Amino acid sequence: MAFNDDKLSLESVRQSLIRLEDTIIFSLIERAKYPLNSKLYDQNLMEIPGFSCSVFEYFVKETEALQSKVGRYESEEEEPFFPDAIFKPDLPLPKPPSVLHPAEDSININKDIWCMYINKLLPQFATEGDDSNYACIASCDLQCLQALSRRIHYGKFVAEVKFIDAPQDYTPAILAQDREALMKLLTFETVEEMVKKRVKKKTMIFAQQVTLNDTIIIKEEKYKIDPSIVSQLYADWVMPLTKHVEVEYLLRRLD
Amino acid sequence: MAFNDDKLSLESVRQSLIRLEDTIIFSLIERAKYPLNSKLYDQNLMEIPGFSCSVFEYFVKETEALQSKVGRYESEEEEPFFPDAIFKPDLPLPKPPSVLHPAEDSININKDIWCMYINKLLPQFATEGDDSNYACIASCDLQCLQALSRRIHYGKFVAEVKFIDAPQDYTPAILAQDREALMKLLTFETVEEMVKKRVKKKTMIFAQQVTLNDTIIIKEEKYKIDPSIVSQLYADWVMPLTKHVEVEYLLRRLD
Repeated sequence: MAFNDDKLSLESVRQSLIRLEDTIIFSLIERAKYPLNSKLYDQNLMEIPGFSCSVFEYFVKETEALQSKVGRYESEEEEPFFPDAIFKPDLPLPKPPSVLHPAEDSININKDIWCMYINKLLPQFATEGDDSNYACIASCDLQCLQALSRRIHYGKFVAEVKFIDAPQDYTPAILAQDREALMKLLTFETVEEMVKKRVKKKTMIFAQQVTLNDTIIIKEEKYKIDPSIVSQLYADWVMPLTKHVEVEYLLRRLD
Repeated sequence: MAFNDDKLSLESVRQSLIRLEDTIIFSLIERAKYPLNSKLYDQNLMEIPGFSCSVFEYFVKETEALQSKVGRYESEEEEPFFPDAIFKPDLPLPKPPSVLHPAEDSININKDIWCMYINKLLPQFATEGDDSNYACIASCDLQCLQALSRRIHYGKFVAEVKFIDAPQDYTPAILAQDREALMKLLTFETVEEMVKKRVKKKTMIFAQQVTLNDTIIIKEEKYKIDPSIVSQLYADWVMPLTKHVEVEYLLRRLD
C-alpha cells in the first residue's frame, strides 16, 4: 500500500467532503431543470433483442465502459455501477496514486445508491412529464449518481484517516468484527447536524434565482430544488451510507 | 417545419438563455476543481496505431457516438463536436419536436468553440499541474463544452423568434445577404452589458466558499473561479459567437 501524506490527512479528507457537497448540489440543480421523463428508466421499453434493461441502464453501462478505458476506475475515489462492464485502461496515461488498504477494492454499494436515486430521490424533485431530452437527462442523472457514489465511497478515506489517527480506538472492534461498536465510534451527531445545516444553506444559495436589478440581487423564494430535499438526502442516505462504507472498510482494515 | 408555440416565444428563449448561464457557471466551477492535466490534450501522446488524436478528443468522439445512439443530436438544441462520428438513434424513444427552419442543420461552429475552450479559456482558470484524474476531468470538460455549445447555438432559436416577431425588419438584409446589416440589427449593447454583469454576479454567488458558522454565512473572498473570467468569456466569446450563429441562421432563413 503506497501512502501519500499530502492526500490523506484529516483536513484534506474534510475539505474533499465539503467540496463534494457543492458538486452534488450543482448536479441535482441541473437534473431538476428537466421533467422526470420516466420512459428513460422503463425496464420494459427496450424490446430490441440483446437489450433487457432500461435505456438509462444501457447508457450508464456504455458510458462507464468508455470512461474505464480512460482510467476512471483506476482511481480509488471511483466505483462503477456496472463493474462487469468495465475495461482495464489502454491509454498512455499515468495512474492516480493509491493510499487505501487493498480491501477497499471489495467495497462497492452502488446498487443501493442506484435504487435510492431512481426510486426515492428522483421522484421527490423531478416534475412529472416528458420533454424527449433523454440523452441530456441521462447525462445529468449520471452526474448525480457519480457525485453521490464518490461522496459515499469517500467513507473509505474517512475510515483510513480515522484509523491511522487512532488505531488503538478501532482495533478491538475490528478484531471482534463488531459492526455496532464501529458504527458507534464513527457517529458524531453534532457533526451530522452541522452537515445537514450546511448543505441546506448551500442549496439555498446555489439554487436561488439570481436576478440583476440596478446591481441589487433579488432573491425569489422559488428555489431550483427544494433545499430541504437535499438536507434530507444527506440525513437519510448520504451520511448513513457513508458510515456503512466506513464500517465495511474498517472490518477489513487488518486483513 | 413543425411549429410549437409553447417552446418558441421571446420569453421562453430568454428564460432558456438565463438558465444556461447557471449551467455554464456550474460546469466551469466543477472543472476548476482540478488542475490543468495537460497530458489529456496532448496530440502527440497517443502512439497507439489507429489513434492520431489526443485522449480528450478520443473521449469526446466516443461519448458523442454513444449519446447520439440515445438521441442527443435529434434535438435542435444540440450540435456534436465530431459530426462524422455520430449515429442515428436506434432506441425506442420519441424525438424532440422541431421548431426551426431546416437550414439550422448546416450551422455548427463547434470547431471554434473547441479551440476557444482548450486554448484560451482553460489556461485562464485551470491551475498548472497533473493529478491523474483524466477521466473525471474529461467529463467536466465535456460538460463545459456542451453547455457552451448549447448556449451559443441557441442563437438559432433567438434568430427564429426575432424573425417571426418582425420579418419586415430582417427580410431586406436577408435578401441582400448583408451580414453587417444583420449583425447591426441583432446587437443591443445595453442588453449585452446587463448579461455580462449578471453572469459576474451569478459567479460571485455560485463560486463562493460557503461556510456555516453559528448559522452565519461567511463569504471568503476566494472564489472557486474568478467571476471576471466568466463575464469576459461572455463578452469575448459567448455573445459574439451567438450572434454569429444568429446571422448565419437568418442568412438561410428564406431559403
